[in-house]
Order: sequence, then C-alpha cells, then structure tokens
Amino acid sequence: MDTIILDILKDISVKTDSKIVLVVLDGIGDLPNEKGLTPLESATTPNLDRLAVNSALGLMDPIYPGITPGSGPGHLGLFGYNPLRYWIGRGVLSALGIGLEMGPNDVAARGNFCTVDSSGKVVDRRAGRIPTELNAKLCEKISSAVQEIDGVKITVRPEEEHRFVLLLSGEGLGPHVSDTDPQKTGLLPLDPVALDESSKKTAEVVKKFIDIVKEVLKDEHPANMVLLRGFDKLPNIPSMREIYKLNPGAVASYPMYKGIARVVGMEVLKLEGHGELLEEKIALFEDNFDKYDYIFLHIKKTDSYGEDGNFESKVHQIEAFDAVLPRILDKKPDVLAITGDHSTPCVLKAHSWHPVPVLLSAPYLRYDPCERFTEKEALKGSLGRMYSMQLMPLMMAHAGKLKKYGA
Amino acid sequence: MDTIILDILKDISVKTDSKIVLVVLDGIGDLPNEKGLTPLESATTPNLDRLAVNSALGLMDPIYPGITPGSGPGHLGLFGYNPLRYWIGRGVLSALGIGLEMGPNDVAARGNFCTVDSSGKVVDRRAGRIPTELNAKLCEKISSAVQEIDGVKITVRPEEEHRFVLLLSGEGLGPHVSDTDPQKTGLLPLDPVALDESSKKTAEVVKKFIDIVKEVLKDEHPANMVLLRGFDKLPNIPSMREIYKLNPGAVASYPMYKGIARVVGMEVLKLEGHGELLEEKIALFEDNFDKYDYIFLHIKKTDSYGEDGNFESKVHQIEAFDAVLPRILDKKPDVLAITGDHSTPCVLKAHSWHPVPVLLSAPYLRYDPCERFTEKEALKGSLGRMYSMQLMPLMMAHAGKLKKYGA
Repeated sequence: MDTIILDILKDISVKTDSKIVLVVLDGIGDLPNEKGLTPLESATTPNLDRLAVNSALGLMDPIYPGITPGSGPGHLGLFGYNPLRYWIGRGVLSALGIGLEMGPNDVAARGNFCTVDSSGKVVDRRAGRIPTELNAKLCEKISSAVQEIDGVKITVRPEEEHRFVLLLSGEGLGPHVSDTDPQKTGLLPLDPVALDESSKKTAEVVKKFIDIVKEVLKDEHPANMVLLRGFDKLPNIPSMREIYKLNPGAVASYPMYKGIARVVGMEVLKLEGHGELLEEKIALFEDNFDKYDYIFLHIKKTDSYGEDGNFESKVHQIEAFDAVLPRILDKKPDVLAITGDHSTPCVLKAHSWHPVPVLLSAPYLRYDPCERFTEKEALKGSLGRMYSMQLMPLMMAHAGKLKKYGA
Repeated sequence: MDTIILDILKDISVKTDSKIVLVVLDGIGDLPNEKGLTPLESATTPNLDRLAVNSALGLMDPIYPGITPGSGPGHLGLFGYNPLRYWIGRGVLSALGIGLEMGPNDVAARGNFCTVDSSGKVVDRRAGRIPTELNAKLCEKISSAVQEIDGVKITVRPEEEHRFVLLLSGEGLGPHVSDTDPQKTGLLPLDPVALDESSKKTAEVVKKFIDIVKEVLKDEHPANMVLLRGFDKLPNIPSMREIYKLNPGAVASYPMYKGIARVVGMEVLKLEGHGELLEEKIALFEDNFDKYDYIFLHIKKTDSYGEDGNFESKVHQIEAFDAVLPRILDKKPDVLAITGDHSTPCVLKAHSWHPVPVLLSAPYLRYDPCERFTEKEALKGSLGRMYSMQLMPLMMAHAGKLKKYGA
C-alpha cells in the first residue's frame, strides 16, 4: 500500500490552523531489567501518566518486524515516509546536519579522523575521539591544503568529536563510491571504489583527496589519517510541505536529526550550544510554537544512555522529560504524539527491532484502557500495532487536515 | 503484499456449497457520547450480544490508518479489493446504481440540478433538493431536447432528489474531464476541461450538452442549471466471480451501493420502493438465500443518522437491525460477518478514519473474549487489528473455500 499512500495523502491533505507536535524520545523502547521493568516502567512520570490516561496508545514497528532501524530510517518512518523505499545517505545527513547547503549534483561523505600506525594500519578508528576544537583545526588545515581537485570543489567541515563532513561539488559526480573505513583495527584503510560507471570520477577525486590528507596529517597525533563512508547525493524525497501542506519546524540539537529534518523540508530552529540542552529545547519550542503547524521535538539522551547500557540514567532522562512535559501541554497543541524512532534496550547497548510505544493525545479518541506510557500498557492500547509511517496520517486525521478519500 | 494477494486468491479459491453473508451496517463505528458510550454500546441488542459471545471480533481499518473513506473505497475494501489501488468514479457508481448498462467505452458523470441567479452564479448547488418526481420530469425534458451530440449518444436519468446521471456512449471518449461543480455558491459553474489528450472529445461534447441544458432549463425554478462531476469509465476490476468463484448477490436499496456491487460482479436483487426498507430487505434476503453462495446485505440508516448527528436514531436503527438478526441467523449461513464500511461518528456528523468493529460468526474460531459487538469489546477481539480488504479472504477460509497456498 505504501507505494501510493503518499500520492493520496498529497491529494487529500489540507492546510488548517490546527497544530501537531511530535516528540521523539530517541531509542525510548526497551527491555525489562532483572526486576522485570523497563526504563519507562521504572521512571516516576506523573505527567506522562496523567496524559496517558486520556490518550490512545499503541506499539509501532519503526520499519518492519525484526528490522533494526538506523536513525535515518527510524525518523523517516515517523515523518510518514516508507523507510524501505526512501534512503538518506549518512554523508548527506551529516552535511545537512551541520548546515551545509547541498545542491542536486553534490556528493557528501561522513569522515572520521583516525589513528594509523607506521605501516598505515588503523589502530583507532576514532583517533581517541579527539575534541571538536582539534577537529575544527584539522579541517581548516585540510581546507587550506586543498580546495579543488579536477574541477571539483572540496569542502571539509567538522561535526562533533572525531567526525567531519566531506562535500564534493561539481559536474559528473555519481554517488556510488565504497567506504574507505575497514570497520576494524589492524587493517589498512580501503581504497574508494566506484560502484558504477557514473561514479568513477567521484572515486578518483576521493582517492586524490585522501592522498593529500594523508600528507597534511602525517605529523599529527592521534588524528593522522581519515576514513570516509556513506557517500551519497541528496535523496529525491517529496517534502512535508508538498505532501501534507504543513509548515514544519524542528527542534533538535544533534547534527544527524537536524539533517533528516532538513531533507524532508523542515525548518530547523537554531539552538545555541551543543549536547542535549533540554531546557533550551523546550524554551525554543515555546518561543516558536505559534510560527509552525507541525513541530518535531527531538530528545536524544534516552538513546545515548541505552547505547551505554546505563539503565538508571535512561530512567532519569525520562523523568527529566516528564518534568518539562507540562510546558509542552501548556501550548495546547491540537495533536501531540510521543514516541521513539526505535528501541535502544540497555541490555543490548544498541538499537533494536522491538516495537516502540506511541502515545497519541488528540480530539476524537475512542476508549483506551492504558494508564501509563509504557511498553506493557501500550500493548493494550486502542491504536493497536502499526507501522511508524502510519502515525503521520493518523495525526493529520485527528488534526482535521485530511479530506475524505473517494465518494 | 496487496499487489499480489488477488492473484493468489484467484489461484486458491474453490467453488463449494457453503454460504457467506456480509452485513454492512453503513457507518456503524462511532465515538463515545458524553456518557462515554457509543451507539453500539448504548443500544439494547440481545441478539447481537448472544452472537458476539460465540463469534470472533476485531477492528478493521477500512483503507489505511488516518484515511477517511468514501462509500466507494469503504465497500471495495470489504469486497476484498485494495481501495488504494482500485477506484470507481462517482459517475460510474451513480450510473450502475440506477441500473444503466455501461459499456467499456462509455463515460458517466454524476449531475446535480442547481439554481443559478440572473448572472449565472450558483446560489444553491442542490436546487433546494427538488423532489425526485420533478427531477424525473426535468430529465425527460432534457432527453427530448438532446439525444446525440457529435455522434455521441446522450442519456440523462434521474437518481434521487436533485441528483441525476449523464451517460455518454460513443467512440473516442476519454474519461478525464474536470468537474463543473465549483463546490461553492456565489461562483459561476466551471467549464469542463479535458485533463488529457484522449478526453478532448468528451470535454467538447459535455460543453455542448451544458449549453443545450442551460437553454432547456432557463425558465425552470429552482432547478435552472446543472453541475457535473466524477466523470469516469468502468474501472478494470476483476469480478468476485473470477477471483473467488462465487455467485454473489446484493441486497441494497441506495443507488451507490447497488452500483459498487455491480462493479465487482454481484447480481443486485430487485427491491420495490425506495429508502431503507429493512423489512423488505430481510424478506428479499430470505427469499434469495438459496440462490447465492455470497450475499451482501447493506443497511444504510446507521450512516445517515451518524451524518445527521442523531445519536438516538442511530441507536434505534441498531436495535431495529438486532430485531431482524434472528431471521438472518435462521438461514444458517456458514459464515456471517457484520461490520461497517467506515465509522460515521455522530459527534463529527461525517465519515471518519476510525477503525470499524467486525464480528465473524463461523466454524473453526478460536477463543475470543468479546461479549458484545461494540468498539470497546472489539479491541480485545481475536481478529485483532486488520484491514477491511483482509476480511474477504478470512471469510473465504472459514467457509472452506480456500485451498492451501504452496506445497
């Protein structure tokens, strides 16, 4: 059905004054600890509890049962796009995330500063997670050494810690180039290889770029080499403005989430500072609520603590969100959904395929027996089991933004 | 998956003596009133209750979460067709509904008699809902004035109240012509515009038709003009006979539902009179039960009262159906499903996207905890949450009409 649903949504969506808010508690879904409780069940969340009683709950498969989503596909689903059909390259996410403009002919890659030994073998794929300040200096050094290769403009910009973005702008650049990251230490960086005819020029330019960088960084330590991956062009995704007639805004602090939001046509609101910034995010949300009819509010740390296996901190992060929830509710959005882009069970220290609980606060809900926003309660919820990509049409319907389909 | 399921059903369906009955309580799903009860929950339904205890229940999305179905897509789903893939134009539904034969080259449109002022602007899109008798007279007057335009045969026939059908029969008629209904009063009727090259002749003929009608009706009041919409040809839908090897019959009184039934290859049983005709419908059902192995029984008023926001009458209509239910059960169909084509919550006075409860009475059911046929009980049902288009294969299976798929 997914092949035509976006076309139909485009036909039946209408502009109205109602407001939709999507809160993504990244990686919120979890598994029970030794006491049989998940972080959501362990957390003290009076505000979420109260909201849950008057909301509809359910469980969403971010992509497809058994499929563990990366952050890109996880969020594409939440924004109403089938993540099996649409794909955003890692490089593109990073480039857009740090605010680089990408044209339709540009190719972006995600870079890591890494450490190689005297034989050139990788000994640390992240160069000891060098501080962002050093990263920025190294990017400047590279930028001074190379601005153009074979008529292709080269842009190198820092992300956070050891991560940077390489952007190639020019004609005739296909996006299909293999990663140079060997994914393991003790191996030599791989050569970039063109995976199709149209990407030969790209691979050649990248190879020359790496040779130059190797020379530029040879006396640096620990960041004396780079690894590149996720080469891609801008995907051809119809924007949320086009499909849903929305004026969407995004409140997110981490580059990747800002990148995904930009790809689907959201305006990314400017946050000062770095990191989670919960207080700043909520203030920004409050200040901009009137300007948008759809706001995506991204909370990162629930995922980070899941990845660290830090159950207690994940619980605290949920409680921190619960404490600011009343400020979101005070704005009286017509439709509010709270969910995650995927589960990140502490016991797995990684993203997982488990469905995520979703809470929908909106007009015209039916009976729903759920009393808390937890995985267990959501199992009884009136939304049942659905796909993340179905949340968006549901929010649109409850917001009165979808006309009838057919006579 | 939906792209191939019909092909598979066609391969594995077999003709047997078992009988399937589908009762559609149009618009049956609803939302709670101020007492927290829906019409199904408020109604006294001893027969439905007894049946529910021994049935399997569930909730069905007619089309897709969040999508509000028109009656056409809502019923196509119930007949096992993906309503996102198959489309029946309004004109076709109307033409077939009043019993007009349509050939593969014919184009049909739904017409409204309307009222225009001296400047030609629409002041009433429905001409005060003129009585059907006047409609019939006006259609005769138009028919006398024009039988053919540029070699295209013109047929004009009354539906009910202000609605009529225009049928164009001839060669070279594409179906893609824009509506002339401006959808608002205070505006001039729109010109019919060909939306593709193949529909140019159709648009020209329609334009000439409208010019003639304007002249014919100029001294009439209030019906002094017409608006046309929903131009279309017969859709290319494989029939239920072809897919399911069924001999399907339909008991429905309203033109549109008869039209949909005809499109999928049902034989529409002849009802005398107009309107809901519950007693007549049940008698017709009883008289014809032996002749068909699938009967679609359509009850309209549950939807009409929902559209009127008339909670109490919707409750009474449900109770009226409950009173005749034993007569359906007395016929001992092997499989009986009771559901709706969509929800029509009284509080919305319109179709909605909310899932509809479905009851399946059949052999080989598992444990099901539901004690009544209500939205709330259906949430616990063993059928879970499904799409309307999945009901048909389920009924076929319980009726023993589907072979194993694969070795």
